[in-house]
Amino acid sequence: MTNPTHITAEAGLPFVDIIREFEHPIDAVFRAHTDQDLFSQWTGPAQLTMEIVHFDAVTGGTWSYVSRDPAGGEYRFRGVFHTVEENALIIQTFEFGGAPAQVSTSTATFEDLGGRTRITTHTVFPTLQARDGMVATGMEYGINEGYTRLEQVLAN
Amino acid sequence: MTNPTHITAEAGLPFVDIIREFEHPIDAVFRAHTDQDLFSQWTGPAQLTMEIVHFDAVTGGTWSYVSRDPAGGEYRFRGVFHTVEENALIIQTFEFGGAPAQVSTSTATFEDLGGRTRITTHTVFPTLQARDGMVATGMEYGINEGYTRLEQVLAN
Repeated sequence: MTNPTHITAEAGLPFVDIIREFEHPIDAVFRAHTDQDLFSQWTGPAQLTMEIVHFDAVTGGTWSYVSRDPAGGEYRFRGVFHTVEENALIIQTFEFGGAPAQVSTSTATFEDLGGRTRITTHTVFPTLQARDGMVATGMEYGINEGYTRLEQVLAN
Repeated sequence: MTNPTHITAEAGLPFVDIIREFEHPIDAVFRAHTDQDLFSQWTGPAQLTMEIVHFDAVTGGTWSYVSRDPAGGEYRFRGVFHTVEENALIIQTFEFGGAPAQVSTSTATFEDLGGRTRITTHTVFPTLQARDGMVATGMEYGINEGYTRLEQVLAN
């Protein structure tokens, strides 16, 4: 079963809002966001290799990873965890090395639906242009792909 | 001499933009933002006591402080430094304990004007309401007061 992903990107505001439910308990869904090995199995485009450089999913921790395409292209990402509250909340920053100093901040709220889990993510971009650029470059496809892979990780 | 502070908070957008010039060299102005002792001398309302709990102004570092009013009220603040690039850039998150999980992200750019310094700060709030609330609760007064105190610190 694949649940729908609801993505909202209202015109004129630098926000992206995402709601997705999973058919798995909240502790498993949350752990797939904070365990480096599990996280690496579903994050980033499926056709790219993913190398997590470091990943310390605690309040005040930092993370960085590199995606590589078959042609040798490298895409670096890094951020800091402002808040990691078990089975409840992850607030983190996000920066793509190709757009230095353009930092977005995401707040992911995890809700226990009784054996099922809802994740609600509110992302704030530094400018309208940064938000619109992210939407234009296949963000929706990437989110759906990631969450489909996350479902596979949870099923295993 | 007190330079003007230009504050912009456009209606309908969750941003606050601040531009301020200082009559001091960039290394002194930058150091007043990253040295715990100097920072504590000008940040926060003048009529409150300021206790820095910790302050690690490096990329990936964290900070927190407590302001206390004469009546015993406590105001806690904390955040993470996404980027600290000497004499150039500070990107950090900001959370007031009284509004948990409402995290704003600020990008402060330092420009060397030849013995003088310009700081341009772009702050992104998680919602329009959070931005408007910050503006309504005396943000402009607080910024001017802080920068006036920073000028005094730089003069010493």
